[in-house]
Amino acid sequence: MSLQFLGSKRPDEIKAKRCISLFGAPYDGTSSYRPGSRFAPNAIRAASVGIETYSPYQDEDIESLCFVDDGDLELPFGNRDKVLDMIEKYVSSLLENDGIPLMIGGEHLVSYPAIKAVHSVCDELHILHLDAHADLRDEFLGERFSHATVIRRVCEIVGDKNVHQFGIRSGIKDEFAYARERLGDFHPFSLPNPKEIVEKFEGKDVYLTLDVDILSPSCLPGTGTPEPGGITFDQLLSFLIGLKGINFVGIDVVELLPHYDPSGVSSIAVAKIIRELLILACPSNMRSDRL
Amino acid sequence: MSLQFLGSKRPDEIKAKRCISLFGAPYDGTSSYRPGSRFAPNAIRAASVGIETYSPYQDEDIESLCFVDDGDLELPFGNRDKVLDMIEKYVSSLLENDGIPLMIGGEHLVSYPAIKAVHSVCDELHILHLDAHADLRDEFLGERFSHATVIRRVCEIVGDKNVHQFGIRSGIKDEFAYARERLGDFHPFSLPNPKEIVEKFEGKDVYLTLDVDILSPSCLPGTGTPEPGGITFDQLLSFLIGLKGINFVGIDVVELLPHYDPSGVSSIAVAKIIRELLILACPSNMRSDRL
Amino acid sequence: MSLQFLGSKRPDEIKAKRCISLFGAPYDGTSSYRPGSRFAPNAIRAASVGIETYSPYQDEDIESLCFVDDGDLELPFGNRDKVLDMIEKYVSSLLENDGIPLMIGGEHLVSYPAIKAVHSVCDELHILHLDAHADLRDEFLGERFSHATVIRRVCEIVGDKNVHQFGIRSGIKDEFAYARERLGDFHPFSLPNPKEIVEKFEGKDVYLTLDVDILSPSCLPGTGTPEPGGITFDQLLSFLIGLKGINFVGIDVVELLPHYDPSGVSSIAVAKIIRELLILACPSNMRSDRL
Amino acid sequence: MSLQFLGSKRPDEIKAKRCISLFGAPYDGTSSYRPGSRFAPNAIRAASVGIETYSPYQDEDIESLCFVDDGDLELPFGNRDKVLDMIEKYVSSLLENDGIPLMIGGEHLVSYPAIKAVHSVCDELHILHLDAHADLRDEFLGERFSHATVIRRVCEIVGDKNVHQFGIRSGIKDEFAYARERLGDFHPFSLPNPKEIVEKFEGKDVYLTLDVDILSPSCLPGTGTPEPGGITFDQLLSFLIGLKGINFVGIDVVELLPHYDPSGVSSIAVAKIIRELLILACPSNMRSDRL
Amino acid sequence: MSLQFLGSKRPDEIKAKRCISLFGAPYDGTSSYRPGSRFAPNAIRAASVGIETYSPYQDEDIESLCFVDDGDLELPFGNRDKVLDMIEKYVSSLLENDGIPLMIGGEHLVSYPAIKAVHSVCDELHILHLDAHADLRDEFLGERFSHATVIRRVCEIVGDKNVHQFGIRSGIKDEFAYARERLGDFHPFSLPNPKEIVEKFEGKDVYLTLDVDILSPSCLPGTGTPEPGGITFDQLLSFLIGLKGINFVGIDVVELLPHYDPSGVSSIAVAKIIRELLILACPSNMRSDRL
Amino acid sequence: MSLQFLGSKRPDEIKAKRCISLFGAPYDGTSSYRPGSRFAPNAIRAASVGIETYSPYQDEDIESLCFVDDGDLELPFGNRDKVLDMIEKYVSSLLENDGIPLMIGGEHLVSYPAIKAVHSVCDELHILHLDAHADLRDEFLGERFSHATVIRRVCEIVGDKNVHQFGIRSGIKDEFAYARERLGDFHPFSLPNPKEIVEKFEGKDVYLTLDVDILSPSCLPGTGTPEPGGITFDQLLSFLIGLKGINFVGIDVVELLPHYDPSGVSSIAVAKIIRELLILACPSNMRSDRL
Repeated sequence: MSLQFLGSKRPDEIKAKRCISLFGAPYDGTSSYRPGSRFAPNAIRAASVGIETYSPYQDEDIESLCFVDDGDLELPFGNRDKVLDMIEKYVSSLLENDGIPLMIGGEHLVSYPAIKAVHSVCDELHILHLDAHADLRDEFLGERFSHATVIRRVCEIVGDKNVHQFGIRSGIKDEFAYARERLGDFHPFSLPNPKEIVEKFEGKDVYLTLDVDILSPSCLPGTGTPEPGGITFDQLLSFLIGLKGINFVGIDVVELLPHYDPSGVSSIAVAKIIRELLILACPSNMRSDRL
Repeated sequence: MSLQFLGSKRPDEIKAKRCISLFGAPYDGTSSYRPGSRFAPNAIRAASVGIETYSPYQDEDIESLCFVDDGDLELPFGNRDKVLDMIEKYVSSLLENDGIPLMIGGEHLVSYPAIKAVHSVCDELHILHLDAHADLRDEFLGERFSHATVIRRVCEIVGDKNVHQFGIRSGIKDEFAYARERLGDFHPFSLPNPKEIVEKFEGKDVYLTLDVDILSPSCLPGTGTPEPGGITFDQLLSFLIGLKGINFVGIDVVELLPHYDPSGVSSIAVAKIIRELLILACPSNMRSDRL
Repeated sequence: MSLQFLGSKRPDEIKAKRCISLFGAPYDGTSSYRPGSRFAPNAIRAASVGIETYSPYQDEDIESLCFVDDGDLELPFGNRDKVLDMIEKYVSSLLENDGIPLMIGGEHLVSYPAIKAVHSVCDELHILHLDAHADLRDEFLGERFSHATVIRRVCEIVGDKNVHQFGIRSGIKDEFAYARERLGDFHPFSLPNPKEIVEKFEGKDVYLTLDVDILSPSCLPGTGTPEPGGITFDQLLSFLIGLKGINFVGIDVVELLPHYDPSGVSSIAVAKIIRELLILACPSNMRSDRL
Repeated sequence: MSLQFLGSKRPDEIKAKRCISLFGAPYDGTSSYRPGSRFAPNAIRAASVGIETYSPYQDEDIESLCFVDDGDLELPFGNRDKVLDMIEKYVSSLLENDGIPLMIGGEHLVSYPAIKAVHSVCDELHILHLDAHADLRDEFLGERFSHATVIRRVCEIVGDKNVHQFGIRSGIKDEFAYARERLGDFHPFSLPNPKEIVEKFEGKDVYLTLDVDILSPSCLPGTGTPEPGGITFDQLLSFLIGLKGINFVGIDVVELLPHYDPSGVSSIAVAKIIRELLILACPSNMRSDRL
Repeated sequence: MSLQFLGSKRPDEIKAKRCISLFGAPYDGTSSYRPGSRFAPNAIRAASVGIETYSPYQDEDIESLCFVDDGDLELPFGNRDKVLDMIEKYVSSLLENDGIPLMIGGEHLVSYPAIKAVHSVCDELHILHLDAHADLRDEFLGERFSHATVIRRVCEIVGDKNVHQFGIRSGIKDEFAYARERLGDFHPFSLPNPKEIVEKFEGKDVYLTLDVDILSPSCLPGTGTPEPGGITFDQLLSFLIGLKGINFVGIDVVELLPHYDPSGVSSIAVAKIIRELLILACPSNMRSDRL
Repeated sequence: MSLQFLGSKRPDEIKAKRCISLFGAPYDGTSSYRPGSRFAPNAIRAASVGIETYSPYQDEDIESLCFVDDGDLELPFGNRDKVLDMIEKYVSSLLENDGIPLMIGGEHLVSYPAIKAVHSVCDELHILHLDAHADLRDEFLGERFSHATVIRRVCEIVGDKNVHQFGIRSGIKDEFAYARERLGDFHPFSLPNPKEIVEKFEGKDVYLTLDVDILSPSCLPGTGTPEPGGITFDQLLSFLIGLKGINFVGIDVVELLPHYDPSGVSSIAVAKIIRELLILACPSNMRSDRL
């Protein structure tokens, strides 16, 4: 039995049909530079006890939300394809119960099977991709499935025009060209006004994939490939909160490497972001105080 | 014999009747999340040798101030009530000599006895409380005296309206409600224009309690309960320097945990803040170059 | 809900009347040199997944034992007397069910209330005290209840002659004199042949209090007051396993500070010792494979 | 271009037909507990500059040996089967030139393809396996190829009776049973007299696979699954030096995790062991001072 | 043989007469507060593999530049004067080949001999000095040649009016007075609009000496004397990129202490700055794609 | 004003003519591998508060000894020759008052000027050199004065036959040859029976230079060039205590690098060794309880 995210319930403690299911996908098998995102889910849970259930930013308390902490998937390190398959099946099972998956990585490749599962139940799925890196290579070290190629693979599923990138500040020349020419949106270096996003995606199904290295390493040093420069924590928070109104059908938060930040701040930052995402993503009919 | 803060004198090296007395109150007995603020006073002293005595911000040198480093109180860990009593008595003894206490914590609870002592010699005492956390709970884990309740207890001494909070970005719902409804000022998330503060408190006795976690963990990762987001070092510095003109009758700086920041930057940041606070708080008749 | 020790069951998963109850007492409030033993119980649980349930030393598997992991007591930091009271009551409740408490500290003071509770149900209780420090001061920093006085207080409960110290290599002159003149056994610097111990205590009720700093800091750097020199891990293991046959009515393992050992070895060492202690302490009628 | 091991030459700097080829196989993809052995080869090279080329133990200098540092294989993280294939082919290519491979892991699974390649050119190959863990599981987390199963797979290639285990102190019950009943030698917990080994294997082809966690974590904290207790550095060194006379056709040294030991001692220890192994393994016709 | 900076060539791999020569001067012998800048060159090279050769900021790829990594000078620790002499001679030899030196320190004193060498081949040399500290003392601990006096010594070579300081936020009173009264430019606390700089120095020979502690410790904690407050990474990057058009005849980047930042972010930040500086400093006739 | 060693007095607190003078020589300017021994003296003082003034090994309390802590010499980093001169003069001044110097390094080169000063007041001076490294090179990186050459230089002062080496386990071939052929004693790898030493040096003036890296890195990871293998703490302690009776005219303890051991154990180990050395070296007429 594992640690539990602040304010969450265990699956057997909740009766609501629909809820947000937070779970960990602690896989970091294709990380080429430095591994350790496998430790993120439990580090985030442990760090969550240092923050409050109440968000003064949104004036809500996550204790009033229907969300469960399902713990971590037990993934076979060393067998990437089986890992991808297990995640896809797990997310599909959550969707069958009308749940909203909130997956904690692991490395960015875990987004691929989750998005694949979500896509299979949506007519049209839009991907909001927040990241320092474009992740648009076609292959990396000879492999087509890797943290460096994941969004390229996602494009193949949902269509280039349904992928929207924000905050990108690193990549090879080809990735920047691909992004500029083919994606639905490409907003490098910074974040746009969230109002524009809300208007654009009103009524559509949206999956948010948040690579935490979009944050400046000042705010989050504990990540796999830190990219100096970038967004502050408060800028990210304002942007995310500004997305209120979008219909999120799935979310993931990936690439925290807790061991590289002995202060623990990185894990706490992600815990706090997840608190805000829970409030953001929770439909009104998933609030226990309104049931 | 302990280390000594940059530019300070030992009590037996100074003849002035009045001076600023810097001392350490290395108690962290009620810290629930992670302890270690007990190590702050000596870490700050050790770090102070890496900065200069001259402040280019205020164009003053602390070598020209009457201030002594009294070392640390030797506090009995495990006996909270006796610790609080010892601090109160010590601060009272400083006040009898017309000194200005500048206490380095330790956890935030140490502010309570210091404020109690200062309050007993003032007609009306105003508290400027800079912090990420409201610290306004009425009890915590069944205890009324704790780092999480300290400002609530302070309110009971000086009156709700004499407590002024700035920069708060975390707390439970009740604390935010209490702060909004009852305190003299409640300015969450950021700092106001210091000119307003100076005008408001002109001629009044003011005690400044500075929980260093008001700073963004970007600037100060080494603290007990880091709260991502928040004020930058330069913003805090500008605000504090802008308070010039206020009559500070006591100051404390609490909640540095040096061990959580292996770069040493957190301790250096607090040393630099204390350098600026010394210049800020020092009345002109305590400047040795003007005696 | 907290982490769980390798191979343990949750209280609600076991039907046996009698079992070994492992629980954490994460209190470090009187630690004067450096705090952090509060983090030990969960660090040990987390580390336990890196070892096996099978002991090749004793050729037994802890999965066949009736032992539960009760999690941690939620202790009010800052109120030592209440903490001691809570531990005593908790241990008493375990004893009422004929359980065997295996407490993970926390600092050494937590042994006092546990021994007090166990003593109250035994006619004659013997204390095996393994430690680098005598802990026999009558007071410390003006306090009678402290990690440095705990065994002196224990002597007052069970009688000097029922306290038996092994491995002590640090203390003030008075402590060494007290130990030599008054205790049942005083075997400083090393461990005796365990056969002698087994013969001496055959048929008696024995409480084992193991301060992990008895180990050489080579083997266990993560402790509050490391004392260079001392026992190796293999020497301690041989001694403990050699105690087979003694009737243990209670055990505690205290003073691990996981944060001071970034390699994680200290926590793993203690997890492994606890595995061996579980096998050692488990009466044959508490083995599930023989029920 | 990578760092270079102390005293080594680059492939293009040497003309001898036969030499010892040191190379890195920085793969840690099946590590389940904690990853990071990928960083070992370069950490060992960097640490090697802190020791001398001269061994006072064997009174030889590695500068007089024909050995090259080939750098690291560039392995595709995330694709275990391809990794295994690449290592096997690389070792085969070294053997074609009559070289002796000295591979630095990486995790223990990298031994499998290296042994497979060596086995294919030997009539009868004996494996000396020094390790804290038996690594004899038939599968682990559903996988047959893993750091926890590697020696079981090796048994299938070379035959149970040609596998000889020393120093094992951890495993599940089945592994200990398998080792006792089927292997050529099983000498748990400690090392035998090396003379016996030399006599037994005189004239035979021997492959040495050294998992550095056989060392006590006192001597080598930086490893994936540290196993408290075990062999000291001097005991291991004496044993290895005592093997002089054996015909080593391949060697690997695996499972160093440099990041878990901030003192750097673990990497230095492995660098020093490799210095001794180079002298040990080098046939007289590979010494440049005798060419 | 040492590590190599991302995208660089070895001296023997390039045929162009003129190129940028990156080399390390790993000397930290006068560092008074904390040493370790000697480790910077290799830490930066190792970190450079985590970034890309392509700069999206300048839309250029350093793979198309003529630049070599010459490795590190082997400097005799303990003999400062010989160290200074060796650096001066080395830089002179680079200049004889019309190369542009890009030196990685080491401490700031290494700038002195490099500037001396460059000055000897220029009619008029301007120094752009970016730093948190003025480094304008006339002596320090009785020594005239020290990291704290280096720019004062530089003034004696190139003339006060040819020295231009930016971002200074620490020093003694005399240094600030000297800077204000005598230097060509003194722009403390922040950076000016780079356009002004470009206009001012158009057509002149400019040497850029960048002490990385000009960055806020939020962005770069790993430095010798961190100075809280200051410039963000993005502000520095914008400024540097804005200098396009200046004729850089030499550059150095000094005072990174990688060991004080366990996250590795500081080294990565400097690697990224060097990538941008390479593009900035490279004349069009040193771009291999235009040869 | 600096920290103070446990149980010491300040120079102005003692009236005895003769006493042991403990002082720090925090110089690490010729360290080639990794610096940081400059931090040793204060780290040892800080660590000393974690041990007791009473030694149960020798049954004495250092509070009864006449010994003062003179603090640290303020040495000009970057000017080796001046540093050596300052140390020599300081030791000479202590000897004029019939004091016994106990110097804490710093790197091993600081022994040279101390021994030179002591030698100038002795007819015949014997050096007991305990170390992992021979330090007998004639030059290193072109320098004759370095941590790697220091004992060779000492030989030139006191004569080869008066130098006695113990525990050496690393060096180049020439150093081992020199030591074997020319020194008074050469006892590599381990320590001899101390009785032999006492008999041999009875009535003679002996200077003990203890490089703490003679200890196994198991016991002391925090040193400049850790040399795996070697002496345990208890073995060193037994040896040193066994030297009782020798007339020590000077002692130094060098090469602790506290920052490389985050557990703090290395500093505590050296503090404990110094406690034992103080008792060992103190003549009966320097014990305050016998004055």
